[in-house]
Amino acid sequence: MINTVAIQGVKGSFHHIVSEQFFEQPKDIIECETFDEVVDSLLAGQCDAAIMALENSIAGSIIPNYALIDNHGLHIVGEHYVDVQHNLMVLPGQEIENIKEVYSHPMALLQCKEFFKKYPHIKLVEDKDTAEVAQRIREQNLQGIGAIASLKAAEIFNLDILAKSIQTIKSNETRFAIVKRKNSEIPENEINKASIKFEADHKRGSLATILNVMSDCKLNLTKIQSLPIIDTPWKYAFFVDVTFAAYADFKKAQSVIEIMGQSFKILGEYKNAKL
Amino acid sequence: MINTVAIQGVKGSFHHIVSEQFFEQPKDIIECETFDEVVDSLLAGQCDAAIMALENSIAGSIIPNYALIDNHGLHIVGEHYVDVQHNLMVLPGQEIENIKEVYSHPMALLQCKEFFKKYPHIKLVEDKDTAEVAQRIREQNLQGIGAIASLKAAEIFNLDILAKSIQTIKSNETRFAIVKRKNSEIPENEINKASIKFEADHKRGSLATILNVMSDCKLNLTKIQSLPIIDTPWKYAFFVDVTFAAYADFKKAQSVIEIMGQSFKILGEYKNAKL
Repeated sequence: MINTVAIQGVKGSFHHIVSEQFFEQPKDIIECETFDEVVDSLLAGQCDAAIMALENSIAGSIIPNYALIDNHGLHIVGEHYVDVQHNLMVLPGQEIENIKEVYSHPMALLQCKEFFKKYPHIKLVEDKDTAEVAQRIREQNLQGIGAIASLKAAEIFNLDILAKSIQTIKSNETRFAIVKRKNSEIPENEINKASIKFEADHKRGSLATILNVMSDCKLNLTKIQSLPIIDTPWKYAFFVDVTFAAYADFKKAQSVIEIMGQSFKILGEYKNAKL
Repeated sequence: MINTVAIQGVKGSFHHIVSEQFFEQPKDIIECETFDEVVDSLLAGQCDAAIMALENSIAGSIIPNYALIDNHGLHIVGEHYVDVQHNLMVLPGQEIENIKEVYSHPMALLQCKEFFKKYPHIKLVEDKDTAEVAQRIREQNLQGIGAIASLKAAEIFNLDILAKSIQTIKSNETRFAIVKRKNSEIPENEINKASIKFEADHKRGSLATILNVMSDCKLNLTKIQSLPIIDTPWKYAFFVDVTFAAYADFKKAQSVIEIMGQSFKILGEYKNAKL
């Protein structure tokens, strides 16, 4: 049973939105400042699951989060996609002319830079989170300050939206993992996606050989990411996601790759959220 | 001839260090706040080349920079690796007990978090750059403030190093690209590495087929990164780096992949900096 979920950020953050959308029932939320704290909370048994962003369509993979899952032997038990839309919000009754400063996460500011070119009187200031600024504006009753955050954050902290979807690239899909200490126990016939990691040499064809096995076993590749292994020149770790129709096909590929590849590891077996 | 080089950050930044190490002669430097500005400067002809970080061994690919190079039709004409080491620096005559706040780039702060656990009296504050803080400490004669930046920054701004290599993961290699508007003109027999981009379907085996061609043509893969193509479900772009002994082998692979893959594009042909 999942009762308590650790998220990066405060309520109203995109990690919180994932928790609300993924689980049928609302969960108790542990708000963490960093992903390290999220993982610490999970390892200490303070929560039953954690939510971690894995990649987005603009910036690509969030490798440090893959490393956290990998290094601590955690398991991805589900995935969820959110179309991250940034909105400008302020205390009720204020107009854009009244806003002197807008605080948000550096990535959010970067994505919304174009919008603010029309408003040169507004100073953009980097902050550690998106929703937390919304919370601060409400709690400290900050006039003249704007936050860039989710609609959910505006709702929770009772702020007015001055402008919706102000990011330059309108489609900004982010993929989140639901992570647990132990593997999930969903029935085999419901598993149709897996995240795996293996190592291979720089040697000609070594990756192609492994991908051929996957192809022969009817696995579809939905993501691949190489990462040089620190202190081991010419050796690479590959983070790969595959989808499949039959779990038995995946197990067959696994048994072959375990022989051919090195350090084969399953980071998670779960249900594909994109069908 | 390359006379002027645009970098992200100020002098003393790691991009500046790349310029100093890659080129035989010192270049005029254009300091830019963002990578967008770096590219604008290059496109406007204000500089002859630009330096852009592409990936590092901790965080992986810097996808937005790949996108900038790809979208603006720029060319990678060289690569350079720097082992990024973070150092704590202050105005001369101060000890760690005197330091109240340390400012740096969020990524640098994250990488040095462990070190500062020993010094709970120091507040860590996010800033937009590493070397720029060093510059500010010097110009505004800021007592009690520390910067986390390169040894080069300490040298340029005449600051004292209180602690060297304070990041948790000691090996932090970052790969930089030297980028121009036009392709380089180095002789074919000196070209032994290329960065390419192509698209392929989610379809079983479509990537493996292309990697097989590369393997057959004696290309070694040193990096692969998939990126979902926005608004085109199940279609992926792949950013791939290959090394080879003979340029003719690369051209042979290119002509086959151009037929099989979609939107094949060479982002750069250059000399492998890692041998």
